[in-house]
This record gives sequence, C-alpha cells and structure tokens, in this order.
Amino acid sequence: MSAAIADAGCQVIDLSGDLRLEDPATYEKWYKRKSAPVSLIKNAVYGLPEWNRELIKKAKIISNPGCYPTATLLGLAPLVQKGLIDEDSIIVDAKSGTSGAGRSPSAITHYSEMNENFKIYQINTHKHVPEIEQILHRWNKDISTITFQPHLVPMVRGIMATIYVKAIKQTNEKELRELYQTAYQNECFVRIRPEGQFPATKEVYGSNYCDIGITYDERTGRITVVSVIDNVVKGASGQAIQNFNIMNGFEEGTGLNIVPMYP
Amino acid sequence: MSAAIADAGCQVIDLSGDLRLEDPATYEKWYKRKSAPVSLIKNAVYGLPEWNRELIKKAKIISNPGCYPTATLLGLAPLVQKGLIDEDSIIVDAKSGTSGAGRSPSAITHYSEMNENFKIYQINTHKHVPEIEQILHRWNKDISTITFQPHLVPMVRGIMATIYVKAIKQTNEKELRELYQTAYQNECFVRIRPEGQFPATKEVYGSNYCDIGITYDERTGRITVVSVIDNVVKGASGQAIQNFNIMNGFEEGTGLNIVPMYP
Amino acid sequence: MSAAIADAGCQVIDLSGDLRLEDPATYEKWYKRKSAPVSLIKNAVYGLPEWNRELIKKAKIISNPGCYPTATLLGLAPLVQKGLIDEDSIIVDAKSGTSGAGRSPSAITHYSEMNENFKIYQINTHKHVPEIEQILHRWNKDISTITFQPHLVPMVRGIMATIYVKAIKQTNEKELRELYQTAYQNECFVRIRPEGQFPATKEVYGSNYCDIGITYDERTGRITVVSVIDNVVKGASGQAIQNFNIMNGFEEGTGLNIVPMYP
Amino acid sequence: MSAAIADAGCQVIDLSGDLRLEDPATYEKWYKRKSAPVSLIKNAVYGLPEWNRELIKKAKIISNPGCYPTATLLGLAPLVQKGLIDEDSIIVDAKSGTSGAGRSPSAITHYSEMNENFKIYQINTHKHVPEIEQILHRWNKDISTITFQPHLVPMVRGIMATIYVKAIKQTNEKELRELYQTAYQNECFVRIRPEGQFPATKEVYGSNYCDIGITYDERTGRITVVSVIDNVVKGASGQAIQNFNIMNGFEEGTGLNIVPMYP
Repeated sequence: MSAAIADAGCQVIDLSGDLRLEDPATYEKWYKRKSAPVSLIKNAVYGLPEWNRELIKKAKIISNPGCYPTATLLGLAPLVQKGLIDEDSIIVDAKSGTSGAGRSPSAITHYSEMNENFKIYQINTHKHVPEIEQILHRWNKDISTITFQPHLVPMVRGIMATIYVKAIKQTNEKELRELYQTAYQNECFVRIRPEGQFPATKEVYGSNYCDIGITYDERTGRITVVSVIDNVVKGASGQAIQNFNIMNGFEEGTGLNIVPMYP
Repeated sequence: MSAAIADAGCQVIDLSGDLRLEDPATYEKWYKRKSAPVSLIKNAVYGLPEWNRELIKKAKIISNPGCYPTATLLGLAPLVQKGLIDEDSIIVDAKSGTSGAGRSPSAITHYSEMNENFKIYQINTHKHVPEIEQILHRWNKDISTITFQPHLVPMVRGIMATIYVKAIKQTNEKELRELYQTAYQNECFVRIRPEGQFPATKEVYGSNYCDIGITYDERTGRITVVSVIDNVVKGASGQAIQNFNIMNGFEEGTGLNIVPMYP
Repeated sequence: MSAAIADAGCQVIDLSGDLRLEDPATYEKWYKRKSAPVSLIKNAVYGLPEWNRELIKKAKIISNPGCYPTATLLGLAPLVQKGLIDEDSIIVDAKSGTSGAGRSPSAITHYSEMNENFKIYQINTHKHVPEIEQILHRWNKDISTITFQPHLVPMVRGIMATIYVKAIKQTNEKELRELYQTAYQNECFVRIRPEGQFPATKEVYGSNYCDIGITYDERTGRITVVSVIDNVVKGASGQAIQNFNIMNGFEEGTGLNIVPMYP
Repeated sequence: MSAAIADAGCQVIDLSGDLRLEDPATYEKWYKRKSAPVSLIKNAVYGLPEWNRELIKKAKIISNPGCYPTATLLGLAPLVQKGLIDEDSIIVDAKSGTSGAGRSPSAITHYSEMNENFKIYQINTHKHVPEIEQILHRWNKDISTITFQPHLVPMVRGIMATIYVKAIKQTNEKELRELYQTAYQNECFVRIRPEGQFPATKEVYGSNYCDIGITYDERTGRITVVSVIDNVVKGASGQAIQNFNIMNGFEEGTGLNIVPMYP
C-alpha cells in the first residue's frame, strides 16, 4: 500500500508499524505476520523529529513511531546518547489510556470491565519492544535488550512511561536536568520539568507535547525518568503532522499549537 | 424454557423479561419479537416483594422485575396507591451504569466512547416502559401512560430514577416522608431518607437496598422522588434471591445482608 | 467591582452571576446574599448571543449566562417563543460534570466519593432556577415557574439538560426539528441533530457548541429536548469570548473554532 | 495511645505506621516526625500473617503493614527468602487507587484534577520504602535498598505492584510458578495465577485476596511479578481483622470470606 503510494510520487507517512523494524525476522517474530519488503523498509525514515529531523526533511516515506516508543525514546535519549547508564539496566514500566487499543469494542476495553480497574497486558511480548531496542541500539551499540511492561489505565487518553536505569557513575538531579534542558532546548514539543516536579498525563491532554521529569536516588544509584504524552497526538497523528510539516518546509508546529485541555 | 422447567415441578425465577407483560400485543410492540404463550405468562407472578409478597409465597413461576421498573415502582408506589398525584403527570428521568447493558462489548459501552461521556438512549422506546405502566395501572386504574427516558452514566453499577409528579393537592415534605416511612416500615431493603437528604447511587453499591428521598416544591406543586438501587443486585439477581427466599419460607434477607461497599 | 471597571470605560463581561437577576429580592432569596446595585444590573445585558445579539453589540456590561441556563434556554427557546407548550409543564432534569463545582476541593467532589457514583444536589434550590425563569418569562409572559433538578456525573466536563414539556397540540418530530433548524439556521454554535439522533456530552467536549436533539411522544403528548454543552466553554468562558467578539465587531467565532476533542 | 491501650491489657492492632520501623532514626528521616518509644516498638509484631503467623498468635500489639508493603512483600517473599535474585536489582513500580490518600479532600484527589489523569507522586521518598526494605533485609541480609515509585490511578480502590528483579541464574515461568504455589499452598488469601495469566486490580475488589502472577524473560534474565490487592481490605482493615482472628484463635477468614465484587 505504502509502496504503491510512494511509487506514485506521493509523500507517505505510515502509521501502521510495518516499516519500523529493519530486520524482517525480528518483525515476523514480534508481529506474527509477514514483513513488508526490505526495499521499502530501507527507504522509510523513522519519524521521531527531535532526533531524526535532517533525515525527515529529505524523506519520501516516513515510518511514524509507535506511541510507547515515542514517550520512551524521548525520555531515554540524552542518557543513552551520552553513555551515562548501565546498558543492561533499562526497565520501562508504561501505562496507557484505552484509546491506544483502538476503536473496536473488545472484552478488555468494555466499560464494565475497565472502569475501576487497572490491568497489565502483553507481558514481555509487546510489539513496541523491538522498536525501542532498535533505536536505542542505533544510539548506543552496547544496548541490546530492555524490559518493557505495558499497563492499561481506566482513562481514555495519555501515556506515562516510568523509566528506571542505573547510572554508571554518581550524579544528581541538577546535573541530569541540565543535560535534558540542553538536549531539548530548541524543541518546541518537549518540556523539561523544574526541580522536584514530575508531569501527569493530563498536563499534555490533547496536545503534541512530551513532558519529562527526571531524578536520581543516591541510595540506589538509580535514575528515574517520567515521560508523558497524549498517545493519540504526539503518540500518533500529531507526530505525523509534525513530520509532514518538516517534510514540506512548513513551520514545525503548524496545526499543532494547541494548549493541553485542562481540567 | 421456563415452561419446561416449571412443568418439571421446579421453581422458576425468570430474569428474561419475557413473562412480565400480560398482553402479548404489547410485548410484541415493545420487544419486537414473539411473545411467550399466554398460559405461561398467566401463571407468572411479578416478583416485586415489597408489593407482591403474598402472591410470591405461593408462586411456582416468578417474573423478576426489570432494573428500571424496580427503582421506579418502589419510588412511586405510595403516591400512586393513595391516589395523591395527577395520573397524567408522571415523568421518570432514569440514569444507569453500564453494567445494565450486559457483558457483550459494543460501541456504546466501549471504554473510549463512554468515559468522560453522558448519553441518553432508547428515547420513548425502552422496553421497561410498558412494564412500569402495567403495574402502575394495576395500582391505580386512572394511570395509563408515563414518560420515561433512560441515560447512561460513566460508571459500572447503580441506577438513579429521578421521578417528577404533580400533586393533586398541596402537601409538604414532612407529610410525604411519613407516607413513605409508613408504607415501607416493615421492609428490610427499602430505606427512606430523613429531611433534606437524598441518596446517591454509591450509597447502595453492591447491596440489595433501594434508598428513597422525597420532596415537594410549593412554587410548582410538584413532588420529586429520588430512588436508587444497585442494578445488578436489587435490580436483578439480588431481588431474585429475595424472591427465592420468600418462595421457600427462608428469612427474606438470607444471602443478602451485605453492607454497601463504600467508598 | 464590575461597576468600577465599567465606570472606567472598560467593557465588562461578568461571569459571577451577580448581574443576572433583575429583581434584587429574587437575587437575595436564591443567592442568600445582598444584591448588586439596581443601577448596575439595569445596564447589564444578558449575554446569550443566539437570542440577544443586537443588545450585546451595543452593551458595555455583559452578564454572562450560567452553564445550566445556557443549555436549558437554547433547548427551550423555539418552543417557548412560539407558544407551543403548556406554560406550566416545564421540567428540566440537568446533569453536569464536576468541573461545574469549581477548583476548590470538597467532600462532594473528592475522587473517592465521586467516582462510580451519581448524585443529585441542591434540589429545588439551585441559583440557576430564577435565571432560567426570568428569561423564559421575558420570552413568554405566561411562564412563571419551572421544575429544575441538577445532578453530578462522574466526569469532569459536560452538561446535558433533558427537558420535558407538554405540547399544547399534537405535533411530530419532523415538524419540531424544522422549527429548531429554522430558529438556529444562522447560528454557528448551535447544531440540531437529524431524525432519531440525540447528542452525548462528549460530542461537544472542549468546544463552544450546543447540540440539540428533539422528539415527540404521541402516547403522552410530551416533547423531550436534549441539549448538551461543554460547561467550561459554551457554559462559561467560551460564551464570554463569543460575547467579546460580538461587542467588538469581530467575527463571532474568533478563538472559538475548536473541534470537539474525541475520543 | 497504643501504649496506653496495651498497658491496660487490651490487644492492639495499630494501623498508623508508627510502630513499623525498628530504628527511630529511620522513622524520623522518612516520616519527618518523632518516633514512638523504642520500648513500644520492640513489643509490636509486624502483622503480615502469611510470613509471621506464629508471632502474631502470641502478640499483644500488632503493627499492621502498609498497603504497598503488603502487595510488595507477598510478591517478593518466595524469591527473596530463597535467595534467587540479585539483591541489588529490586524495582517496584506501584499503582494505587485514590482511597489510599484518605478521606480528606485535597487538590491532588479533587475529581476534576484526577479523572482522566495518571500521576506519579512522592518519588524516592514514600514512607513505605524503609518498611519494605526492613522486612526484605530480615528475610535476606544481602538486601539493603530498593527502588520504589508510587503512582495514582483514576480509580478508587486497588493496588498493583509491578515488581522487577534480576534472576541470579536462568529459570523459567513454570519453575517460578511452582515456587510460589508451594510457598502459598496453605494460604487462604493468596492466589497464584496459572500460566500466562496476570491479575487485574478489580479481580480482588472488596476482598482480602492478594493475587499474584509471575513470569521470566529469557532475553533479559529478568523476572516480573505482578501483585494486586484491595488497598482498603488486605491493605488495611481486612488484614487487621485477619490478624485479630489469628491473635484470638478464630478461624483466620472469619468475617473476610467475601467474594470480590465484579464487575
């Protein structure tokens, strides 16, 4: 499908997930179906604007990131790219609203089953695991696997990724915050929280923002990063629009300058 | 089905609704399917214990009331039986949690559609309308029709029926409360609220209670009755157990003496 | 406060409710506090744009309508202004999300009390009753009182007013819909639903729309109108912006052309 | 208070948390207030029945466990006591309904702030951290610190602790499940899930159960344990009743044999 459209000379922004994994074998293992042709995958640029903007500008085919990978990768990038963490220590405990499960009614998202309930699902088997690992590995060759467990929250919109990593040497909250502020200083859709503050999902509700809080625990030597997005905006169509703007030389926030809806 | 079981000499408590309406034509108009045999319907006793206990004691087949009729009829009975209201003035604005819609997933009860949402449905056409009218008419021949509109609340359990009627002569809250307290003084599952208090659905959560508040507005001459139940207990299986206890001479609250879960 | 600002030559759009009631005695009865000066109230124009646009254009002081009155009055206007209903028959069963209760934490809006709960409150005593009655009376001198009961829904945003009235002569859904479509044909923020469709609150979530459905029941001669708004937009600040635009000759939808957020 | 009651010869089950930490300095660091007298703390038995039953039988004063420690410790006990995990690898990502925050209204649990929202709070500073660490250390001297982050879910009741640990040698799900089934085979309030199944919080709603699921990821060598309780039953008063029953030689489930409410 995407191939035909691209062949016809149109720009393609693919939200399906089919063009995200470079290795067909990995795709087939996690997605349990046949991979797209390698020739097509090779031409697809991973559409995470904050870390791939130059390639997106020249791309014909964008593979739009998954919702969980968007929150997770934006939360991990500065630490991973600078090599500040134990490569074997990454754990992502992710929580999503039900809209991530799509529009088709199902037992798992039936109101009477889901309200006043909190669930874990697809333990060790979520399709976004290899997508996250592939990008982390691209950024830091020492990283090969992560632990990632997704949960379902009784709400419609929003993702929080609580990310746990081991620092390779002692650090502190101030140093870490400065690292993140510097990394994202020119980004209009990533906001780093001030000292002692951590984002809640509603603070990005309906917007294209990714809000990030970060802290360090001296007792354990562990860093905790909290990254939130609205899964149906920055985690899906909003990011697609952002990519579209970049591909076409438009101002990056065109159509996306929406204040989060609160309360 | 119920017929075969009853023929075999077993007690039947039918929760299907198929034995509730005396008139097959009325059933077919509102239910849009063929009625059960009249011979079977004739033998079924309407299982609203507070107002039909003597017949239930001797019954072989019980037609268990619908959830909305239970809340509505318990809320209206004292006024209707005493002929205190304009027979043409009854309006029931009913609100239900989603468990009333059953276990099958559907677009209307899909979590992403239902949370942070409030809906009205089956306007002027809900199957419980003729059931309520039939019993009201049995109690007071002047009553033939009511207005009843059901709504869906973003919660799982609970029904509130807000009932509006015109008093035929001036009254006051005290007089009305005494009427209700007298009518239900020997009932273990109906509780009348004191002056100025009205029940919320959570106050009967998980229990077999029907809680009722009542007031009068001098400005308009209108009485408002607020009646709440847990639709899956007093509005369904709890009432079935209550009927079973009565049919078999057991203490009426056996298996039902459960305190509402709060919070 | 508003007086001082207005005296200083500034436009005032007052959201407090203090300038809504013409009669100080009525204000003091329902609000339980001293009225604003009559001289100030007299100069305040009731800011319901759909039915008061010409006065708003020339106004210096706008009294912005309450949330419940906005939904109710837009739902009743065509019937009341044409004199099609029994003047003594108006019942409004209103439901609101918790944001209507404001930002201050309280027992009634404590999460553990409100979730999985549905409440009725301020029975026969809500301050919006005289506001609604005053405007209805302005439109139709035969109307003096209504019955209005507000409820609290376990959701944050949205109001549904389910309105019950008696038609003075037989009518039908088609005729009623045409009446409403004609009445609101030039309004950008009122949408009338097609046959057999009724709005849910989420269909106007975050927007300045008021969506209306209407039907007639031949059995009872009663009309049911369903009117929904987002209480913090069309029911508050959104309508204030709409008034501001009208007062200043701006395009009426400036800053308000927001699609409802769904899901 | 507890001291006076105990001195008077009465049994005390203390839910306050004041008698949980052995070391006054640790108490004062995490609770930010003065510790109870050491003499009193020394006499208090930690009331986690599954792992302390013999001492509870003879106790005069019980220190009832916190809600998060109950879910976490029951989830970790078999692994920790058998020394199967890297002592430095324990991460607990905990999620709770709002009833854990108590009955007092506050901005954080205001309905309009909390619904459709997911929050993290008290990062690295929750009072239950030293309580969990103290018991883990009692079970396994090599364990001194854990990482624990609590979150607030838009629901009233329920806790899920998602627990991440590194296995010291390769294992598999079957082996782990058998370990847990053996450990809890005589426990009436702990239920181990069969292969591939993990509990949701609603599956213990209103009951005294702790339900546990467990799995192993070969790719990472990490074990994930999922432990759920109803925080106001097994996490508070239900466990207190269980302790009371044990102290007095009553059948342990007396008053607690309640089926979870579903849906």
